[in-house]
Amino acid sequence: MSSFSVTPPRSTSVSTGPLAGSRRTWLAGPGGDLRVPMREVMLSTGASVVLYDTSGPYTDPDVEIDVRRGLPLLRAGWLAARGDTAASGGRGARRASAGSEAVTQLAYARRGEITREMEFVAVREGLPAEVVRAEIAAGRAVLPANVNHPELEPMAIGRAFLVKINANLGNSAVTSSIEEEVEKMVWATRWGADAVMDLSTGADIHRTREWILRNAPVPVGTVPIYEALEQVGGRPEELTWEIYRDTVIRQCEQGVDYMTVHAGVLLRYVPLTARRRTGIVSRGGSILAAWCLAHHEENFLYTHFTELCEVLAAYDVTFSLGDGLRPGSISDANDEAQLAELATLGELTQIAWEHDVQVMVEGPGHVPLHRVEENVRLQREICHDAPFYTLGPLTTDIAPGYDHITSAIGAAVIGWHGTAMLCYVTPKEHLGLPDRDDVKAGVIAYKIAAHAADLAKGHPGARAWDDALSDARFEFRWEDQFHLALDPDTARAYHDETLPAPAAKSAHFCSMCGPHFCSMKLSHQVRAQSGTTGDETAGDDMATEVIEDGLRAKAEEFTAGGNRLYLPLA
Amino acid sequence: MSSFSVTPPRSTSVSTGPLAGSRRTWLAGPGGDLRVPMREVMLSTGASVVLYDTSGPYTDPDVEIDVRRGLPLLRAGWLAARGDTAASGGRGARRASAGSEAVTQLAYARRGEITREMEFVAVREGLPAEVVRAEIAAGRAVLPANVNHPELEPMAIGRAFLVKINANLGNSAVTSSIEEEVEKMVWATRWGADAVMDLSTGADIHRTREWILRNAPVPVGTVPIYEALEQVGGRPEELTWEIYRDTVIRQCEQGVDYMTVHAGVLLRYVPLTARRRTGIVSRGGSILAAWCLAHHEENFLYTHFTELCEVLAAYDVTFSLGDGLRPGSISDANDEAQLAELATLGELTQIAWEHDVQVMVEGPGHVPLHRVEENVRLQREICHDAPFYTLGPLTTDIAPGYDHITSAIGAAVIGWHGTAMLCYVTPKEHLGLPDRDDVKAGVIAYKIAAHAADLAKGHPGARAWDDALSDARFEFRWEDQFHLALDPDTARAYHDETLPAPAAKSAHFCSMCGPHFCSMKLSHQVRAQSGTTGDETAGDDMATEVIEDGLRAKAEEFTAGGNRLYLPLA
Repeated sequence: MSSFSVTPPRSTSVSTGPLAGSRRTWLAGPGGDLRVPMREVMLSTGASVVLYDTSGPYTDPDVEIDVRRGLPLLRAGWLAARGDTAASGGRGARRASAGSEAVTQLAYARRGEITREMEFVAVREGLPAEVVRAEIAAGRAVLPANVNHPELEPMAIGRAFLVKINANLGNSAVTSSIEEEVEKMVWATRWGADAVMDLSTGADIHRTREWILRNAPVPVGTVPIYEALEQVGGRPEELTWEIYRDTVIRQCEQGVDYMTVHAGVLLRYVPLTARRRTGIVSRGGSILAAWCLAHHEENFLYTHFTELCEVLAAYDVTFSLGDGLRPGSISDANDEAQLAELATLGELTQIAWEHDVQVMVEGPGHVPLHRVEENVRLQREICHDAPFYTLGPLTTDIAPGYDHITSAIGAAVIGWHGTAMLCYVTPKEHLGLPDRDDVKAGVIAYKIAAHAADLAKGHPGARAWDDALSDARFEFRWEDQFHLALDPDTARAYHDETLPAPAAKSAHFCSMCGPHFCSMKLSHQVRAQSGTTGDETAGDDMATEVIEDGLRAKAEEFTAGGNRLYLPLA
Repeated sequence: MSSFSVTPPRSTSVSTGPLAGSRRTWLAGPGGDLRVPMREVMLSTGASVVLYDTSGPYTDPDVEIDVRRGLPLLRAGWLAARGDTAASGGRGARRASAGSEAVTQLAYARRGEITREMEFVAVREGLPAEVVRAEIAAGRAVLPANVNHPELEPMAIGRAFLVKINANLGNSAVTSSIEEEVEKMVWATRWGADAVMDLSTGADIHRTREWILRNAPVPVGTVPIYEALEQVGGRPEELTWEIYRDTVIRQCEQGVDYMTVHAGVLLRYVPLTARRRTGIVSRGGSILAAWCLAHHEENFLYTHFTELCEVLAAYDVTFSLGDGLRPGSISDANDEAQLAELATLGELTQIAWEHDVQVMVEGPGHVPLHRVEENVRLQREICHDAPFYTLGPLTTDIAPGYDHITSAIGAAVIGWHGTAMLCYVTPKEHLGLPDRDDVKAGVIAYKIAAHAADLAKGHPGARAWDDALSDARFEFRWEDQFHLALDPDTARAYHDETLPAPAAKSAHFCSMCGPHFCSMKLSHQVRAQSGTTGDETAGDDMATEVIEDGLRAKAEEFTAGGNRLYLPLA
């Protein structure tokens, strides 16, 4: 990108190379010229398992990574071929050409056009491209893809697709550096983050974001009010629509794919938070509330929302309608303030759609388990089935230090009920800023939640991964079990703590039971005795009878063979 | 206990002292002579929060801990006062006196008697003692309390009570030592384990268990078939009812409070597992299946079940009816083998109740989220509302190394739907034996799941903990937030990584936003402007109007005051 002229970070090393036992592979698109990257786990049996891959070119040994140059421009040709955007202004960024029809994926989908981005998504998701188009056209899914983010490997967020996860990154005035943030982005996508938000504050916001964008294979989101506030020295009352708009335009030109906009924090809702246990906990929400109070005027994001739509439409930036009044504690869950704002978000969703702008809607936060489903139901009704994007939710407040777990519980359940993207929470939530290890812990916990939700939703193909891993476990293929794990490195390390010897990797027992007590081994005996394999499925009742006869006939054989449950170790 | 004559372990140091910011306190029972220990978290405001406490005398600085002597005999006087047990045999253990009525808590409850154990539980749970008695009498709850475990601080397991968690301990032939297992028990209860199971295998089973029991303030469970198998050199086909019975009696005499008995693994169910993806994964289940196959006879635990009831009744040992055919993968969840065994467990539940023996029923294992509730519904129907005790369940198979999380998700949901006790899973599940850190990780994950379930069930009083922590968070009382955390040490350590200075502990900002962006600070401003406190609840609509008027009147004040959202740091 021509705007990629900021000073490079001091350190430019990032995590590269495939995950243990995997390689980057490609599926062909319908035309044959589309190559869609996937993660292929190579098994010791000669078979392989192909999984959705968020890691980008970093896991491809054939791509030379240089963060100072940025990633290859996968979408550049597609964008050029459409011919409906042009470079504008001094910074050389693209936007919709004057007089062109709307350039958003929503507009294309509504016009019946299947874009290359949609084709890419269809191959990744294993669904027909027409399904992708139809979901986007109906507003039930978004495909966040700024025309100024050609490095993006397109993905979709919607309940018909795999549940996605977002990882928040960002330095703050207190700590962190650009170098760390770029590596955190690479690291987060390596472990499965489908999208990242750069929530940086402080002096280097623009530069940090530039480096992240030029190196991000996933959509990048921001909360523009943070940068706008920097422009006015951190004094919310000095914010103006014009300052905010100019900030948004700069970010649109940079390539930000989705933006959190707290346009639902209305002046009249602010008093509803006064009697809450934990008030307003959204940073953006509190900034807008402060502005409203200081001026005693309506939120300028609300009053200028149609103008904002026009800006975002020109770059195909997706709205993430922020829940500035989300509850910050179990006590405040599903309260009047939250639901009042949700009603406004529903109104804004329709306005955005009128301008062909893609929309997703943010949700809580902190919710006890029995009220999680209600959040999805209300959001769907009120926001016309726009994709739901929730932070957690945390299902209890009592475990700071473990909020990746308190919230993975809520995330799995809300994903099952239809939330399309889950914003991760790290172990440092409420306590500090996440480091690299925390980012990984948060991503893994949320991949678990998302996959548990996919299984519960019955997403076609989701269970193949579980089945492959369970087969490896049952057949004592330890290496395959590690390689199929969400985190192969940790799985192997934990195994090796107890049984480090290489021979144990192929041993027909494991450290839980030792060589003399292996229940899985017995199961193989049962299967052998009954003359069936695990793959047989036909004629259940009859098969059972046959097996029983077989067992009776073979009982003596079992005893004659020495009644050995466990084969001697090689 | 007179049987406490085994060789002491080499190392006798265990974790003692209160959790940071807490002290052991006591609630008085109805008669005034009952002292029920609780954990009192002392807040900087002068207030305190009283929580259920599983840690036993180890967190009481006034008790001198000597693991070679064992814990004080809390129940000795109660048992003696009842006068219905007597020492028997050479080992000096107590059992029901000849000619006495049944000595189980179930029998007492059915006779309308509220025991001291029930009173103790009532105070701990904050419920009337009559509720405790009635739940036990109906079989909906158990109070596992062997007459030979006088060190026990009684607890109850049932859906009317707080959801409990069990931690599995135990060395194996491969690794671990007695010393480590005793410390793991102390460590597990320190962080919240309500019960522990000693699953040791190998030569030192009896001695390990003795040391755990004499030092355990919580119920201790076992799987006697493991020790019986040791008696026959690890050859399942050589097991007999007599060998098993004698093993059980020794364990009853030692003080084991509940025993997993796989009496539902019937010969005719074994072939149902042949076409499973992962066969039989229960160690006990596989041992019994092997026996059934070798002899082609019905499981001796099933054919001798009434005799087993008579043994357990004499010591008030609680059945934990094992699910030997539980699924070992998502693929096998809720299958025919599992449900066939469940039907038998329902039959056995009633037989045990006819013998006044307390019963809980074990459950899976691996279950996708959308089939979790079905497990509880079927278990309740088929097993006549006997308490359900589940292992997890894991909601996906793809994350070895993180199965404390995959299963905490399932555990929270199954607990919400009525499971009474959750058996923890550690990060080492499927990979190795848990060390001390893994035990803590498993316990914390399961305390989160249990508490999330308590909140969702609406257990009276459960939310007070969340509210206290959220209040501390909103009021920037960092020390209180740490002390109220499930794990105060980790919460503090994570905070200190980002902001180590002592001043930051009282700072009115935190490391997530830095001093200039604090959303919570704004909320205080809103509350101050509107002239309300978080505690006001009356007249919502009118109050809102008053607040809005107040806001309008005070908007100028806000601006006149410099529009400061954030007070200068002291």
